[in-house]
Amino acid sequence: MEKKITFLPDKVTIAVDSGENLLTAAAAAGVYIHAFCGGEGVCGKCRVAIREGEAFSERGLLKEEDYTAGIRLACRTSVISDLVVEVPTEVDSAGRPLPRKPKTTRTIAVRTLAEIIGGWGLKPPVRKHFIRLDPPSSADNMPDMQRLLLALTRDSNQGQEPLYDHPELLQELPFILREADWQVTVLLLRGQMEHEPERIIAIEPGDTTDQLFGLAIDLGTTTVSGLLIDLNTGETVAEASTYNGQIAYGEDVIARIIYAQRPDGLRVLRKRAVYTINDIIDSVCRDTLISPADISYIVAAGNTVMSHLLLGINPKFLREAPYVPVCGRFPLTVASSIGIMAHPAVRLFLYPAVASYVGGDIVSGVHACRMHESDKLTLYIDIGTNGEIVVGNREWMLCAACSAGPAFEGGGIRYGMRAVSGAIENFQLHPQTLEPMIITIGQSKARGICGSGLISIVAELLEARVIDRQGKFDRSVSHQRIREGRDGFEYVLVWAEDSLVNEDIVISEVDIENLIRAKGAMYAGYQTLIESVEMSFMDLERIIIAGNFGAYLDLEKAIRIGLLPDLDRNKFFYLGNGSLLGAQISLLDCNRFLQHTEVSSLITNMELSENPRFMDHYVASLFLPHTDLDLFPSAAGGSVE
Amino acid sequence: MEKKITFLPDKVTIAVDSGENLLTAAAAAGVYIHAFCGGEGVCGKCRVAIREGEAFSERGLLKEEDYTAGIRLACRTSVISDLVVEVPTEVDSAGRPLPRKPKTTRTIAVRTLAEIIGGWGLKPPVRKHFIRLDPPSSADNMPDMQRLLLALTRDSNQGQEPLYDHPELLQELPFILREADWQVTVLLLRGQMEHEPERIIAIEPGDTTDQLFGLAIDLGTTTVSGLLIDLNTGETVAEASTYNGQIAYGEDVIARIIYAQRPDGLRVLRKRAVYTINDIIDSVCRDTLISPADISYIVAAGNTVMSHLLLGINPKFLREAPYVPVCGRFPLTVASSIGIMAHPAVRLFLYPAVASYVGGDIVSGVHACRMHESDKLTLYIDIGTNGEIVVGNREWMLCAACSAGPAFEGGGIRYGMRAVSGAIENFQLHPQTLEPMIITIGQSKARGICGSGLISIVAELLEARVIDRQGKFDRSVSHQRIREGRDGFEYVLVWAEDSLVNEDIVISEVDIENLIRAKGAMYAGYQTLIESVEMSFMDLERIIIAGNFGAYLDLEKAIRIGLLPDLDRNKFFYLGNGSLLGAQISLLDCNRFLQHTEVSSLITNMELSENPRFMDHYVASLFLPHTDLDLFPSAAGGSVE
Repeated sequence: MEKKITFLPDKVTIAVDSGENLLTAAAAAGVYIHAFCGGEGVCGKCRVAIREGEAFSERGLLKEEDYTAGIRLACRTSVISDLVVEVPTEVDSAGRPLPRKPKTTRTIAVRTLAEIIGGWGLKPPVRKHFIRLDPPSSADNMPDMQRLLLALTRDSNQGQEPLYDHPELLQELPFILREADWQVTVLLLRGQMEHEPERIIAIEPGDTTDQLFGLAIDLGTTTVSGLLIDLNTGETVAEASTYNGQIAYGEDVIARIIYAQRPDGLRVLRKRAVYTINDIIDSVCRDTLISPADISYIVAAGNTVMSHLLLGINPKFLREAPYVPVCGRFPLTVASSIGIMAHPAVRLFLYPAVASYVGGDIVSGVHACRMHESDKLTLYIDIGTNGEIVVGNREWMLCAACSAGPAFEGGGIRYGMRAVSGAIENFQLHPQTLEPMIITIGQSKARGICGSGLISIVAELLEARVIDRQGKFDRSVSHQRIREGRDGFEYVLVWAEDSLVNEDIVISEVDIENLIRAKGAMYAGYQTLIESVEMSFMDLERIIIAGNFGAYLDLEKAIRIGLLPDLDRNKFFYLGNGSLLGAQISLLDCNRFLQHTEVSSLITNMELSENPRFMDHYVASLFLPHTDLDLFPSAAGGSVE
Repeated sequence: MEKKITFLPDKVTIAVDSGENLLTAAAAAGVYIHAFCGGEGVCGKCRVAIREGEAFSERGLLKEEDYTAGIRLACRTSVISDLVVEVPTEVDSAGRPLPRKPKTTRTIAVRTLAEIIGGWGLKPPVRKHFIRLDPPSSADNMPDMQRLLLALTRDSNQGQEPLYDHPELLQELPFILREADWQVTVLLLRGQMEHEPERIIAIEPGDTTDQLFGLAIDLGTTTVSGLLIDLNTGETVAEASTYNGQIAYGEDVIARIIYAQRPDGLRVLRKRAVYTINDIIDSVCRDTLISPADISYIVAAGNTVMSHLLLGINPKFLREAPYVPVCGRFPLTVASSIGIMAHPAVRLFLYPAVASYVGGDIVSGVHACRMHESDKLTLYIDIGTNGEIVVGNREWMLCAACSAGPAFEGGGIRYGMRAVSGAIENFQLHPQTLEPMIITIGQSKARGICGSGLISIVAELLEARVIDRQGKFDRSVSHQRIREGRDGFEYVLVWAEDSLVNEDIVISEVDIENLIRAKGAMYAGYQTLIESVEMSFMDLERIIIAGNFGAYLDLEKAIRIGLLPDLDRNKFFYLGNGSLLGAQISLLDCNRFLQHTEVSSLITNMELSENPRFMDHYVASLFLPHTDLDLFPSAAGGSVE
């Protein structure tokens, strides 16, 4: 149920879902509320007064008289009805109210994206079938397996006898059948090609049809994320995310390729990838009390280098001209055969790669958002360490990869971290007091900064002119939070006593430089790609943004720093982790799954590194938002005068 | 070229191939020549005179004047032209010639069996394809594997893209392609079902199409035999045979099943089976200087227990009523996954089992001799430790198994051995002198007695009345070779100084008892099976005998001891190792291979152990040849008066 919240004194209104947190709602409305504990309720700063309507809130740190008078801590308050909320006015040292105006903000939530993603059926690549067999007798002593196959064939619509191919199945079969009194559940893998029969993957005693799970994996260079999905209901029952264990051997794909050439390097990287996936499996299984053996199918998407490494394929030739992958369509692999902690016969599907630097992750994302079915000219952007860009529609697609570096995933940023609990994901700066409003994922004390937080912080520092368009701090500003640190000037986001890490959490000029280089590579990529098909940004009908940012990306702020082109905001859609979403859809719906081959065959790759214009565009992009302000009319006519 | 040999003084003639050994020819003709060194030429006893024609012979132990006079050692003489050969007449102590008449003998050579086995094409389950690829360029940088698949699809008639499924292939691929300058040979597995594409098994640098080998294996309870076959020519290039390494854990299938129930018993038996196959591979590869990695497909046939054990499937329920195998049709297994020394993707096909004691070995044999295509009512007998009997024709087949014990393969016989070099395979006894004529496999000094030798020896001892119809020695016969030994009375076949083992090689009453029980079980099996379909022996149009006896089985002698029914000799055919032959044919000809499913679906199993008549028949069979001489008119009216 949607509720309307009006923030006074500025009369800013926003519609939110019932139950939404009031601090988050204020941030989404662009309303600044002083807050620096991330939303944990321990700094006691985010005091607001509920003037009308009903909200649920604990008293927390508030005095009883304040609580009775309707004062609440915004971070500890949930919306129940429509509300009118008064936000205290900041005053200057002389006690005069500071001028303020609500910020232009725009978060695009994943959940508004139904029109982009479309629906899906519930027809997973595996199914379970419970069967009661007649026990054998002297008159009917056919072999156990033939008894089972005959019954399965009789029950199936196709009348096709299922296949089976691993001896382990036969080793267990006679005991399972007899212990389960000839009542068993068969796990079947659907045929991968037309006319291909189903394949028996596992046989379990009794009726276990209600236990059918799949795992979707996004195998990123920096972050690996997974969803455990109940294939009976289609629901995600657990999710987990962790750094790729290969990071110790190099931050980007090039470094990994180089490491793989060392003695034993390939084996080490492969093991690290497998261990990382096993960590994800361990985590989602602990959360749900499901055994890893109950995972019946795995769909993974990763860039070409990650996919090669996972299968133990040397990526050497991916970085040598003419940049040839070993494999585009990967074989459907028995997951346990490469060391993944799963039932011995469970299959791992890896999304196909298009080129050395355009991998299964991008195919998966494009597949998820159905670009291959749309007439609209779409720019698809996957923001990550290995940034990927696709432009096109149902008739043609051109794609390119650019190495943005790991900044968007918290890599190379001193207090950078993944988008998990404790990461600053939203940030506002009071334009006069320069005090922060900090919102963390999970509303705990801050531990660090994730990609969306980093974008917010730099955009706000820029808008408040704390930093200039080159990302350097204005040396003339004097503020207790601005100081010279190890990496040049820095702004203290969270004081040590308010942080979870017992250190001041800061953002430094080096961090900002890293972000500028990352966003510059992305932007130069779009420009080069769109120019190469003799089009301009104005021709784009949709811009779909994917990336591993957690739940939200603030569009205005992303445009403000020049990460995204300055176009009609209604053309933008935020997909979240597109790679993971594609994997999830493929796990749920065979019919949609089959279309992935269309996607990969539509995409043509362009090598940016061989395009002389790319470097020019890149250099011009190393400003906030850009050297050429004609490209950013909002910035030129807006807050940056 | 056939040559005619006439043996004087009895004027017995026989036709043999040019190059045939003269001692072997005499034995085949039923002509007794005193010989006890097995044919090695060191006893100097088998002197004959060449009266007409040409023969090749070394002088050996002969005096020069004898050699010049035309005296030859039969065992060292090869037939070149038609011959007239005079065999010396044995004399009694008074110098009078001993009466003699040629023995009735009939060996049925495998090579006369073309009409039974039929022909086969040369279309193995795997093929090699040499391909020259265009190297990648900036304009064409598709992945290595897609480049290969595209070229293969273009070259193949079907236009179907091959599959591939093991990551190891991709791990090697980029290096092989580049080192081989983009010229490689692809090993492809044919689709197993209609519409199923080929599957890439291996990729090798350069053109290796002339190296394509397959392995046929007969996985017997006692003996494991293998043939290495050149799949380009269809020729057998090496063969090997060894005792099944499981023997240490029990002589027959029942003992093995029991052992498998011990802690770790199943794993031990499985490993032993695998090691035995690896020994065969090692042996055939050494003989031919071929690497085990060049074996591209394996077809094996074994009884149900052996097949289960090889795949690590517990055979527990095979010996518990209602005697249910775990599996009839075994999955096409990756051989290396169960420990077989082969290329990592090579497949092992195991002939399907029909019932707990009617296994893939019998299906393979019936398949080889095309009973499923013949109108003739046929009795198929596989003589071995696990004896198997099939009666029927193209419309129906009934089969049964009877546990004969290992006597036919040399097991449980003091000097028993497999049919390999040094085994006595043919034997005659001079009816007056009671001296032996010994012919061994490989014509070396004797090491022991194989199955066909054992049958010969017992038949000859019976015919000469050295033993009676119960298999007991006639205590009234006084002869230096007959004595009381450890296991009752025994006959010395070879004195220690003439043997390769430096011991007297004997046959004892216990050995004879074991053979009587073995042949009794077989005969009772035929009787029970034929009666169960309300037929009699007289209805049979063909009797096909299979078994691991080496090259020859003497039909007359086998009938004389009651192992085979006493029927028109022209109805008998000897197949040799039928199980191995079927495996060989399946390896060579896909079209014939596919018919194996017809065979297994035609066969209905009958449990002898549940048939009350079987035991009656068995007890009546524990005589030489049988209690009921009406069943053996040759014996009744012939030599045993």
